[in-house]
Amino acid sequence: MLVSGGMDDHLGWREEKSELIRSCGIFNLRRARRVSGRGRQGWFYLLEAPDWINVVPVLKEAEGGTRFLMVKQFRHGIREVTVEFPAGLVQEGEALEEAARRELLEETGYRAGSLRMIGRIRPNPAFMSNWCYTYAAERLERNEEQNLDELEELEVLTVPVPELVSGIGTGVYCNSMTFIALQWYLRSAPE
Amino acid sequence: MLVSGGMDDHLGWREEKSELIRSCGIFNLRRARRVSGRGRQGWFYLLEAPDWINVVPVLKEAEGGTRFLMVKQFRHGIREVTVEFPAGLVQEGEALEEAARRELLEETGYRAGSLRMIGRIRPNPAFMSNWCYTYAAERLERNEEQNLDELEELEVLTVPVPELVSGIGTGVYCNSMTFIALQWYLRSAPE
Repeated sequence: MLVSGGMDDHLGWREEKSELIRSCGIFNLRRARRVSGRGRQGWFYLLEAPDWINVVPVLKEAEGGTRFLMVKQFRHGIREVTVEFPAGLVQEGEALEEAARRELLEETGYRAGSLRMIGRIRPNPAFMSNWCYTYAAERLERNEEQNLDELEELEVLTVPVPELVSGIGTGVYCNSMTFIALQWYLRSAPE
Repeated sequence: MLVSGGMDDHLGWREEKSELIRSCGIFNLRRARRVSGRGRQGWFYLLEAPDWINVVPVLKEAEGGTRFLMVKQFRHGIREVTVEFPAGLVQEGEALEEAARRELLEETGYRAGSLRMIGRIRPNPAFMSNWCYTYAAERLERNEEQNLDELEELEVLTVPVPELVSGIGTGVYCNSMTFIALQWYLRSAPE
């Protein structure tokens, strides 16, 4: 039942040509002409995007509870405010762990004493080329103020783990990558 | 800690203007000029996309086991073959349940005796406008052959529930929307 490499060659499509249509900062729009093994052919629109990084920052409370550090911001795609895990783009030449450390620090002002990758997923295999990697960040220390990108305005807040577990997929907790990051965290063995 | 409506007005951005850059079939690329409450302003690239529908088709075996009906296909974004739940775009004027029924039938040739919505998520609040809805499809009946879109070539297979649960996020099971659809299904009370 499982699929592996060469067995599925008959499903592959060969690229005849492709053209960059527009560079849009966080992705490039490209159009590719492709032909299937059965001779079907068509143009396909694709987004070339850098990999994304998601960070699950875990705060242990003195009383024994656990909270996530999250960010509240206006999201331009849906034109609403969401609450999500800190996240961003992996920069060219940047190691994944370095990107996780940087995004956490920039968006929240916290440093992680430990970082571990807990999963990765393809945000959209149909038309996006990238991965989204998730890191758990533990032993957090408040370090400095936020250091946001020019067009970012976001607020930091903490959310009790049980609140996110029960609320995920509702209200402000609607981001699919935050949903998946939470699942990776729950599956991983917390420190 | 929870965020609701008006409390977060200060995080909002106002749109000054926007322009359609390109219609790409499965989405439109748009650029919008927006200004924040604090006076920051910039151009934002956005994808306007129709809502997506994901279907979790559940097959009960005579021996008591449960399998998912899934589809194997070449995915143009990542240029690899994946195994995913049947999925597609909600057409204009189409009810969500109707879209779920149609995609299941077109991609697998099965009809659902019952359909129930088990969750919805924002695939990408940062630059996409749409929702992805997930339906569980039960009491399946083999009806007819696949009826695919012109540029679709896909194969139907069945995957035991425990195999997908342990394999999700690895190998061919890398699609984020399939990951989330599985979580909705596991959280819902199966029929």
